[in-house]
Amino acid sequence: MTTNRLTVIPIGGLGEVGKNMMAFIYGNEAIIVDAGMMFPENDMPGIDYIIPDFRFLSQQSDLKVHAIIITHGHEDHTGAISHVVQAFPAPIYATPLTCGLLEVKLKRDRRFDSSNLIRFEAGDVLKLGPFTVDTFHVCHSIPDCVGLGIDTPVGLVVHTGDFKIDHTPVDNWPTDFAKLAEFSRRGVLALFSDSTNAERPGWTPSESVIDAAFDRVFSKAQGRIIISTFASLISRIQQVAWAAQRFDRKMAIAGTSMSENVRMARNLGYLEIPPEMLISTDEAKNLPPEKVVIIATGTQGEPSSVLSRLAHGRHPVFSIDEGDTVIISAHPIPGNEEMVSRTINRLIQRGAAVIYEPIEQVHVSGHASQEEQKLMINLVRPKYFVPIHGELRQLTQHAALAERLGIPHENIAVVENGTTLTFTSEGQMKVGERKPGGYVFVDGARVGDVGPAIMRDREILARDGVVVVNVVYQKSRGVFLTEPEIITRGFIFQPDSAALLDEARQIVRKVVKQNANGNTVSLVQEALSKLFASQTGRHPVVFAFVNEV
Amino acid sequence: MTTNRLTVIPIGGLGEVGKNMMAFIYGNEAIIVDAGMMFPENDMPGIDYIIPDFRFLSQQSDLKVHAIIITHGHEDHTGAISHVVQAFPAPIYATPLTCGLLEVKLKRDRRFDSSNLIRFEAGDVLKLGPFTVDTFHVCHSIPDCVGLGIDTPVGLVVHTGDFKIDHTPVDNWPTDFAKLAEFSRRGVLALFSDSTNAERPGWTPSESVIDAAFDRVFSKAQGRIIISTFASLISRIQQVAWAAQRFDRKMAIAGTSMSENVRMARNLGYLEIPPEMLISTDEAKNLPPEKVVIIATGTQGEPSSVLSRLAHGRHPVFSIDEGDTVIISAHPIPGNEEMVSRTINRLIQRGAAVIYEPIEQVHVSGHASQEEQKLMINLVRPKYFVPIHGELRQLTQHAALAERLGIPHENIAVVENGTTLTFTSEGQMKVGERKPGGYVFVDGARVGDVGPAIMRDREILARDGVVVVNVVYQKSRGVFLTEPEIITRGFIFQPDSAALLDEARQIVRKVVKQNANGNTVSLVQEALSKLFASQTGRHPVVFAFVNEV
Repeated sequence: MTTNRLTVIPIGGLGEVGKNMMAFIYGNEAIIVDAGMMFPENDMPGIDYIIPDFRFLSQQSDLKVHAIIITHGHEDHTGAISHVVQAFPAPIYATPLTCGLLEVKLKRDRRFDSSNLIRFEAGDVLKLGPFTVDTFHVCHSIPDCVGLGIDTPVGLVVHTGDFKIDHTPVDNWPTDFAKLAEFSRRGVLALFSDSTNAERPGWTPSESVIDAAFDRVFSKAQGRIIISTFASLISRIQQVAWAAQRFDRKMAIAGTSMSENVRMARNLGYLEIPPEMLISTDEAKNLPPEKVVIIATGTQGEPSSVLSRLAHGRHPVFSIDEGDTVIISAHPIPGNEEMVSRTINRLIQRGAAVIYEPIEQVHVSGHASQEEQKLMINLVRPKYFVPIHGELRQLTQHAALAERLGIPHENIAVVENGTTLTFTSEGQMKVGERKPGGYVFVDGARVGDVGPAIMRDREILARDGVVVVNVVYQKSRGVFLTEPEIITRGFIFQPDSAALLDEARQIVRKVVKQNANGNTVSLVQEALSKLFASQTGRHPVVFAFVNEV
Repeated sequence: MTTNRLTVIPIGGLGEVGKNMMAFIYGNEAIIVDAGMMFPENDMPGIDYIIPDFRFLSQQSDLKVHAIIITHGHEDHTGAISHVVQAFPAPIYATPLTCGLLEVKLKRDRRFDSSNLIRFEAGDVLKLGPFTVDTFHVCHSIPDCVGLGIDTPVGLVVHTGDFKIDHTPVDNWPTDFAKLAEFSRRGVLALFSDSTNAERPGWTPSESVIDAAFDRVFSKAQGRIIISTFASLISRIQQVAWAAQRFDRKMAIAGTSMSENVRMARNLGYLEIPPEMLISTDEAKNLPPEKVVIIATGTQGEPSSVLSRLAHGRHPVFSIDEGDTVIISAHPIPGNEEMVSRTINRLIQRGAAVIYEPIEQVHVSGHASQEEQKLMINLVRPKYFVPIHGELRQLTQHAALAERLGIPHENIAVVENGTTLTFTSEGQMKVGERKPGGYVFVDGARVGDVGPAIMRDREILARDGVVVVNVVYQKSRGVFLTEPEIITRGFIFQPDSAALLDEARQIVRKVVKQNANGNTVSLVQEALSKLFASQTGRHPVVFAFVNEV
């Protein structure tokens, strides 16, 4: 890389481009924006989480990273912070709430003491090597989010972060139009803009519509109200508190992550709940049901969440009673629909009235829809447009929308993670080579060792289970020292399969005897696979040990 | 059961009530409605399909089943026909297209010759023991669907089947309002009505809106058009043929199920495609792209489908080229979102323009929304209302809707699969006991042997894989006859794990030597599990064979 060009690389995210991490590089000087993780999809068993594959960048020994800037406190922007700061030991910049959430993660991973966490306020300007970063407030579904105006030697580039345009947000702090207009006046080389909802026409509703929906539900509810939402959705927790206040109910917080986030957000002043409104779960149990609101996690049907344990009747403190109202104040994330549906059905089975979208508008998206995306483009008036934070399908729609607003087709780049975009001092954008900037699996204590081969093996094991066979054969005398031992897992219901296993043992004996000098192990495995296929139609993994002594 | 009462039992379906099968029983005489299957959800690895658990009914030796009536040709109403007819060897009644589809299944399962498949036309009246069944046409997303007016000694009960109210269906054959009105005049004891879309306000759009959407897409497409839909969605195939005709393109059918269905539907007169319009896939390859439409399956991202193979560049005849337009004329079934999204992204990656809802209205649901459900209730004016064909969440919404229309709360029954509903000759409905009428897994050649224990083992195997250990130890001399053998699957990447496996072998040697007379196997398994957990954070299933000779 020569010094007179800016290189921008989106990194990580399962299919979403630039969601977890982006690098802005000028010469050998860089800033990193976001350090997030993804949760595994349904066909990725055993994977704990997924982080950006930034190895191509950390291996570049002369690269000087001046800062890791985190745009907001959601997992997909913060969850890989310990991995990223280990690879790039630069200061981490974030707004107060985001700092609070990062601190928890860094402490958990024992990286807090070695990290340099620098707090800024939206609107602050950060001088970072050759970059001057103008931070600006944006609305989203967690407070204290920022976008970035990154002034570089080749021009000003704007990164929206995750955003929506909400004129009546819960915290009364709308997206910073003045700063966006100022960027436009200064002239914007490129806009990198959130594409999540590029398939949705119109405007995303304001968070304020939730208040009215809560009013309708609260006014009808005769018994307890249990509201489930994301622990990070601080503004929703605020709306629940307000509704509880309006309807003269006390509020209990169930679950660790929700309690921790409420405590931190109250300490930092992002959440206003009068102390006398908050009660413990034990107190909630003893109050009349119509005086209680319980707030909890579990909107995605996660088995260990409070809501799922309530649905299964396995919560240590509460059980769902006839007359309870459960509000699910979130949408299922794609891939979680089955789990969410089962949770709803089980809650209904236990007698609860369950309220969710579209029954009532108890949730709105935190991302801009098409009309807001248009407004962003027209406020910023960039020369080049790069849709980010979406899969190819959303990026493509966002690109088409930008083209309809007059940005020339050739000035729009739809790229994938790892693809390098360069901006020259002559003000030209070029799509360059693609680096291995996808994602890696974290499974247990190891990062990146689980690849397609292991995943394929796991899939095969999950499909039909496993059979292991052990036999000890005394070749010289032609006798078996023990009866062939057969163990199965995930293959058949053994108590009902005595005949099949007897037949399997006979086959093992026969094959071993006949082929005492041959390739016995694979012959045993083949013979058993054949038997199992013909008798059960299943294809378990078969391991055989033929010990000849 | 006494003879003066009608018992109705919904059976099977994963969470959907009465979707796959329903039994109507008077005394010991019965008719069965539908014989369908479900596909496994994401956390059911290895399961091929799922059928209703009708064993409680087939074990009732004095039960006389007069008929199995199939309301329409979709898998969730036909897919278990071979299992059902084996348990209940009664005649199977269906309309011509449904008969055609059933014939294929029965022949595949070698049950056609022993089955008695009786064809009727919508509007026909069937005399079946104590039941007189008035069949009536309903619109849905496959032609030739019926609902049933079942006249019983205790009164008339109406079963809607899957339905929507489409005033401009593709085949010009609207839902039979006259018959429904006639039922109302005769007086309806109970209505069993399709709840699938009970969460959707308004009206489901008519199939005819697809024509306009196809016009918009076809008029813009410069190259080939590839349309993916369900093989059973005959009316959509008709609409594709009409659009191809309007835009002077020829049409090729890709894939076996699509070709078979097109052939049958044309033979039976449900599909009008001029012979000169149809071309082979080879001919399609040689025509200019702007003259070709290819129709194929794969809307759910199924890996073996034509669309998925195109997306992965693994189709034997076609590849996706820059300029191709792909239309996905279906919605993802819940649980399939991830696969569908990946397919869309991959098609875009290969240069296709991909059109799907909500980009264009290229699909509409085949089920009634709330306004249609209201119309059905008000046309039929039943005394009792029983929502079916939905999960508890949809049934609950449908029940609330019926109550708003004036059906008394106590005259509405939301029940689950297996629950018996009885209607007495005095015109009373009672919710009775719940029979084991859920579902059973079919895995390979076996039905019903895979239960929760096996599924749990499969989940554990999938999560962290398996390790098997074999060692032969000569106790008398205290020596190992072979080096401990360790095989892993789905656990670690073995080429990178030599040190870990060496350590594992040393541990095995040590434990075996120290405990030559003890419970060596479990001690080895424990020691290795501990090692793997501390070194990798993973918990594979460990099997050890310690052969002492």
